[in-house]
Amino acid sequence: MLYDLTVIQFTKSLQNLGACLDKAAAFAEAKKIDPEVLLGSRLAPDQFHLLRQIQIACDTAKKGASQLTGKDAPVHEDQERTLADAKARIEKVVVYLQGFSAADFAGASERQVSQPRWAGKYLTGHEFALHHMVPNFFFHATTAYAILRHNGVDLGKKDYLGPMPFKTPAAG
Amino acid sequence: MLYDLTVIQFTKSLQNLGACLDKAAAFAEAKKIDPEVLLGSRLAPDQFHLLRQIQIACDTAKKGASQLTGKDAPVHEDQERTLADAKARIEKVVVYLQGFSAADFAGASERQVSQPRWAGKYLTGHEFALHHMVPNFFFHATTAYAILRHNGVDLGKKDYLGPMPFKTPAAG
Repeated sequence: MLYDLTVIQFTKSLQNLGACLDKAAAFAEAKKIDPEVLLGSRLAPDQFHLLRQIQIACDTAKKGASQLTGKDAPVHEDQERTLADAKARIEKVVVYLQGFSAADFAGASERQVSQPRWAGKYLTGHEFALHHMVPNFFFHATTAYAILRHNGVDLGKKDYLGPMPFKTPAAG
Repeated sequence: MLYDLTVIQFTKSLQNLGACLDKAAAFAEAKKIDPEVLLGSRLAPDQFHLLRQIQIACDTAKKGASQLTGKDAPVHEDQERTLADAKARIEKVVVYLQGFSAADFAGASERQVSQPRWAGKYLTGHEFALHHMVPNFFFHATTAYAILRHNGVDLGKKDYLGPMPFKTPAAG
């Protein structure tokens, strides 16, 4: 299940976020707005702007997969400037996530996960996923979406959730 | 894991949201604002207001637990008017969630889950949790938080994430 949460769920959600950025680019073009205005927009003066929300969503997914599996993550330097850069950052993380298999997450629930700001303390992988990684990822993905929607980009919750893998009951 | 996601994770997150509403009430009192102004606030004209975000977060958790386990959920009529009402709604759902045990979720991954708007199609419980329930819950919890923060309530991500169950490594 940690593989599913980290790789399947975050891959899909990052791809949905990338599609929202495509809508943002089209919106900026139609309105003749510099797209960097959107990347610098925020919902409160002391909250991170859109670009930083995207970067943290990306890092939460990338570092989560890395920490749960003990595999090194690529370094991404936070040097994006444009919507295309932000989308490329998302795509790099998707490629990284897609390199994992379920087997890589064997033992992940019991693995000790820490972060520099946790001052030597740790969570088990299971606790980390439940209490930090999953809520934190969706916090930043949703805030990115909310900044775009607040600014008038034509988004609905379907853009955030993406398509559902629906099944049809067998006739009987 | 579906028990942990649905009961442990959502219970904690709903309690964190309740604490954010306490901060909202204190903010409204300090600023001499009618708290119902906050409940009616939204980030975009075509997005739901704060009260509706709270109601949907509550229903996503309640109905998710109900559908994954096959147990009936209590009906909550969407008649809240005040911040105290909204907090009481959250607390009712927390009590409902806390009535579940991990054993109630036996077989939940394979259970067929549907919703009226899905026109007869279904997801397995596993797919439902990954593709709909978890992202949808955090969408509405984060949007509720974002509406409050956008309106000036003194919130930080710690209010959203809540305390971490940190462990200290054994001396060695």
